[in-house]
Amino acid sequence: MDKELTAERGIILFNRRRHHPPPEGIGMGAHSIAEELARKQKDISVAEFFERNKQILGFDSLSRSLITAVKEGVDNSLDACEEAGILPEVIIEVEALDKTEYKISVEDNGPGIVERNIPNVFARLLFGSRFHAVRQSRGQQGIGISAAVMYGQLTTAKPARVRSKVAESNVAVDMELILDTKANRPQIIKKDYSIWDKHSGTRVTICMKGRYITGKQSILEYLKGTAIVNPHAQISFKDPSGSTYVFKRASDVLPPKTEEIRPHPEGLELGTLMRMAKATKSNRMSSFLKSDFSRISDRVAKEICDSAQIPPELKPANLTIEQAKQGIDAIAGVKIMAPETTCLSPIGDSLIKKGLKNVLEGLKPSFYAPPVTRKPRVFAGNPFQIEVGIVYGGEIPADQPVEILRFANRVPLLYQQGACAITAAVENVDWRNYGLEQRGGKGIPFGPAIVLVHFASTKVPFTSEAKEAIANVPEVREEIEQALRTCGRTLKVHLAKDARRFKTREKFEIVQKVLPKIAEKSSIIVGKPQPDLTATITKIMDIVWVDDRIEFAGKRHKVTIDIYNYTQTGKKISFYATVPDGHLSFGSVQPKAEEVKEGRIFWDLKRIASMGKTTLTFELEGLEKEMYDENELYAAGIDPSRIIGAEPLPGDWGIKVAAPEKEEKEPSPDDEENGVDYDSAKEAVADE
Amino acid sequence: MDKELTAERGIILFNRRRHHPPPEGIGMGAHSIAEELARKQKDISVAEFFERNKQILGFDSLSRSLITAVKEGVDNSLDACEEAGILPEVIIEVEALDKTEYKISVEDNGPGIVERNIPNVFARLLFGSRFHAVRQSRGQQGIGISAAVMYGQLTTAKPARVRSKVAESNVAVDMELILDTKANRPQIIKKDYSIWDKHSGTRVTICMKGRYITGKQSILEYLKGTAIVNPHAQISFKDPSGSTYVFKRASDVLPPKTEEIRPHPEGLELGTLMRMAKATKSNRMSSFLKSDFSRISDRVAKEICDSAQIPPELKPANLTIEQAKQGIDAIAGVKIMAPETTCLSPIGDSLIKKGLKNVLEGLKPSFYAPPVTRKPRVFAGNPFQIEVGIVYGGEIPADQPVEILRFANRVPLLYQQGACAITAAVENVDWRNYGLEQRGGKGIPFGPAIVLVHFASTKVPFTSEAKEAIANVPEVREEIEQALRTCGRTLKVHLAKDARRFKTREKFEIVQKVLPKIAEKSSIIVGKPQPDLTATITKIMDIVWVDDRIEFAGKRHKVTIDIYNYTQTGKKISFYATVPDGHLSFGSVQPKAEEVKEGRIFWDLKRIASMGKTTLTFELEGLEKEMYDENELYAAGIDPSRIIGAEPLPGDWGIKVAAPEKEEKEPSPDDEENGVDYDSAKEAVADE
Repeated sequence: MDKELTAERGIILFNRRRHHPPPEGIGMGAHSIAEELARKQKDISVAEFFERNKQILGFDSLSRSLITAVKEGVDNSLDACEEAGILPEVIIEVEALDKTEYKISVEDNGPGIVERNIPNVFARLLFGSRFHAVRQSRGQQGIGISAAVMYGQLTTAKPARVRSKVAESNVAVDMELILDTKANRPQIIKKDYSIWDKHSGTRVTICMKGRYITGKQSILEYLKGTAIVNPHAQISFKDPSGSTYVFKRASDVLPPKTEEIRPHPEGLELGTLMRMAKATKSNRMSSFLKSDFSRISDRVAKEICDSAQIPPELKPANLTIEQAKQGIDAIAGVKIMAPETTCLSPIGDSLIKKGLKNVLEGLKPSFYAPPVTRKPRVFAGNPFQIEVGIVYGGEIPADQPVEILRFANRVPLLYQQGACAITAAVENVDWRNYGLEQRGGKGIPFGPAIVLVHFASTKVPFTSEAKEAIANVPEVREEIEQALRTCGRTLKVHLAKDARRFKTREKFEIVQKVLPKIAEKSSIIVGKPQPDLTATITKIMDIVWVDDRIEFAGKRHKVTIDIYNYTQTGKKISFYATVPDGHLSFGSVQPKAEEVKEGRIFWDLKRIASMGKTTLTFELEGLEKEMYDENELYAAGIDPSRIIGAEPLPGDWGIKVAAPEKEEKEPSPDDEENGVDYDSAKEAVADE
Repeated sequence: MDKELTAERGIILFNRRRHHPPPEGIGMGAHSIAEELARKQKDISVAEFFERNKQILGFDSLSRSLITAVKEGVDNSLDACEEAGILPEVIIEVEALDKTEYKISVEDNGPGIVERNIPNVFARLLFGSRFHAVRQSRGQQGIGISAAVMYGQLTTAKPARVRSKVAESNVAVDMELILDTKANRPQIIKKDYSIWDKHSGTRVTICMKGRYITGKQSILEYLKGTAIVNPHAQISFKDPSGSTYVFKRASDVLPPKTEEIRPHPEGLELGTLMRMAKATKSNRMSSFLKSDFSRISDRVAKEICDSAQIPPELKPANLTIEQAKQGIDAIAGVKIMAPETTCLSPIGDSLIKKGLKNVLEGLKPSFYAPPVTRKPRVFAGNPFQIEVGIVYGGEIPADQPVEILRFANRVPLLYQQGACAITAAVENVDWRNYGLEQRGGKGIPFGPAIVLVHFASTKVPFTSEAKEAIANVPEVREEIEQALRTCGRTLKVHLAKDARRFKTREKFEIVQKVLPKIAEKSSIIVGKPQPDLTATITKIMDIVWVDDRIEFAGKRHKVTIDIYNYTQTGKKISFYATVPDGHLSFGSVQPKAEEVKEGRIFWDLKRIASMGKTTLTFELEGLEKEMYDENELYAAGIDPSRIIGAEPLPGDWGIKVAAPEKEEKEPSPDDEENGVDYDSAKEAVADE
């Protein structure tokens, strides 16, 4: 039924028909209802639209408006610096003009903006440089800063002021700008030139109605979050009281510059394929697929054409809808490499941990789960990558919902948590599996934890122009859930280890304090000498106990691992410790290890006698203090239930492990004599 | 520091300066970074923007996309019908073309669209008739249906088809349209005329990628919600399986047509005032205020001018920013009437209750809290009005978060619940005060309840163009909270009444079953005759018990109220029953009441003897069955703790009430003899 005409043909038809007289009987009755309604139907300027819907841009309350404006300014500054390969130095100032009017300014050391583009960049909606580029950047819409300028003039009727200097010029240009909302065009109110003691850079100053607040959703929190995920940026902030906060640069290395890539074919829409086929410079489908998309080789192009029954030599402009549809199906069926990661700029495991430690050390968390960085994936042709970190314990409130720190392309998201795919993913995971409380296994879990999620993509599918929530795109939400589960599992292992240690420690209390007392009292009563309790203790404990600690001194991490054999027999154990990856050097390793490589050490230990102890130590150089604070220890050759403090060696390590020695129960002559077993000892404690 | 120049002067400055040569030293080095960036900075078409950000328009997943498209079509149809004063008849059809492609069509009996406007209405973003009008309507943005057309062509490369017929024409026009996204303009692919057996109307047909689902977020649920709040519309829906659902018109009365009003001055932005002052036809500030705003009389205009020290004869175009600022302050300080309600179309208490009953009767709720309709208020110059209803009990799941039904301008909101001011308001209320479970008094409460909130406004501050969540505008959220609390209080009263009844019923069990048994057994054991238990029972119960029921037969509600005096003394009570307001007629009222008026009946009852009973009855005609199903009963002249089933008379009723009679304890001769008191009876029950 549906016509499948190309646009070109359509226009011809239209042109041919438009001059025909309308069929008889079509009147345009001037007083009809339809005509009356028609007169009201008119064009709406995009700026008028957003002026009336300023809440869509993030200007829905006085306090949020200030934050949104600062955010737009800082995002632009960081993007510009990074594009120009400059380590960012951003200076933010918020000044109170009266009780509801503020002047905010954001200044950077970026490359500056050429004079002719300043008006459009700051006072025209939908004008920008990053909209069409397939690579990760903060600003993508070409709306943000002009929206702030528009909000400022709406609420104060004052123009924005921009100063910018490019490196080649010896003066800066100063402009006062307003946005003509009817036309969505900039108006220059005033222009001037002046000396600016800066190699290059831009400063924008906007007066606006607002309310300055502190707390969770505040400018300071936003800047703190920005500092976590942009450790290469120096950010200073002067608040309305005149206090200045400086977030010092924690790293002198710029994140690798993101590179523009061609669109990835996964999730391509039919309409997009048709349009690209019409616009391509290639003359053959095969070369079109290869040159206009990323990750399509000659072989893959041939596979797609074959599977879709499209002749490889077909002129792309002649592609029919049916063929395009088959092409899309063929793409879904062909194995195509994941997109290049050069277009993305994830934060990285170690910087996430560093960032979290920096900000959260006051809460003294007991556990930082190793951050998870997933492999890049694709939604609707857009590569994206998820990173997750979890922090647990310490003084993080245990009776509150877990705090979620959301980031998109290195920008903290403060508002609209409830609308965000990150929140939906957190709510969808059954956290009861990972040691957190959660009613019905749905919703935000409760417990002493903070969850960080970073979404990095060439295209962030924000739910609105305010850029505060990521839309619930199924591929994205599922990928975040996967990352959360992976990170959750390490949390679970940690909590389980903690719980086992805690339980065993209880046993220790019994054997080390209560048993000797009972023995002493019993021996006095019966008038016999105190018996040797070794056999009893090992019988009750019957475990190997591993205690480890990490000390940091003189730029070195020193790790000490004590292994106590509280079983009734000697134990021969293979022992493994994972150490962080990277360019590290080992100091002394005691006793000599069988293997020291690829981030792990392996000892084939001598037999440890019953009630005996062995100590392992090693030193590592090249890591910052906070990057190494929890050991992952594994043991083989022993029944996993008989060892506390080390996990069974994972099967996928590919290490051949001897089966645990068969436990031969050595009948102890003391057993009968003492007549003390674990249960009665427990009762004895309970009676105390 | 900030210049306060008008736009006009700015242009002059700009024009004067633009031909000056730039000062020396400003080079445009072709190879500079700034210049390189500048070349990438360009204009973005609004349609391109939304094509790349289709999630903002509600097209973020296959299932949601179908719903969004249907929604846009139905919203337009209902708006058009109501504007033309036509009772809407909307026919929706969703047909599966293959496993991911659907054809949806929405047809109405509206006034039709004149031929020349069809292309722009359906294939051009930001084109519409309701954007500038200050009155309540569903569509306000001029984006919705064109966005659906654009999504259709993006995912299927097929044009949309529109058929429309206006009443004056004897043929319908058929068009196939696509939206040229680079230009944001319609292209007519094909045009034709044909006979359509319809007085007037419009049908739009769009093919799109999608997934048809059922459940909470589905087309059927959306239509169900639409039927609840639009009882005047007839909606039929044919789903992909061919099943047809018809939501029959429940009312033949169109909602009063909303009227366009002038902007209300409350919350006016400075920039808006300045622009209006420049554009007005009035020559004096006083007449400008009076003629360009609603609710500003001569007196109020004078008050504003006086307080702002603006000469009333000032030409509005000459208003300075300083004066405008003072004007805004003055407006905030002057008492201005609430906006006209003619621009709003609330659903109304009775239709809300009716709608809820219609949809929820399957759950057999035990209580429908009387819906609350707040007075209109204003945010940023936009009048708005909040309506709230709560349904409780029955088979509504008790261990789940409360379900929230959100509506804006009679449109159900299905997505982005977490981003919505309605949700934020529900989360902000401490529902523990109103009988629902809520951890920490924050968040969505748990319990067997469903909460309906309708936000009606001349301008809905949606968080995005997808129109699924209301922005967290403080005035709006607070108003919703107020309405929720008001409604919550009636829920609390109901639950408290229930709880007291339940507790008292326990006592009844004791006195009516256990006491006689004890008396019987005791009398056998001690060989004495069974004693009269009246005094004991009244001593244990010591309350007046009110039992009421409402029956409906022969178009009449018959109310019966039994009042049992289980106290030890006679009781003289004044008794009040509220009855629904409206044009009702009373049938018999027994015994004769002192007052029957203004929705209430008042009896000054004869003294009811101890262990005595009085029955009150009355009949009402003129109400639909479901509109009257719970009595509100009040009593005076008795200690409130001594009566179950009637509340103390509220002080604000302005009724003079005699103080409760002093309770004179009549010593009962039976007390000692029987030796049975309430506590031992309780124990006896516990032992059984």
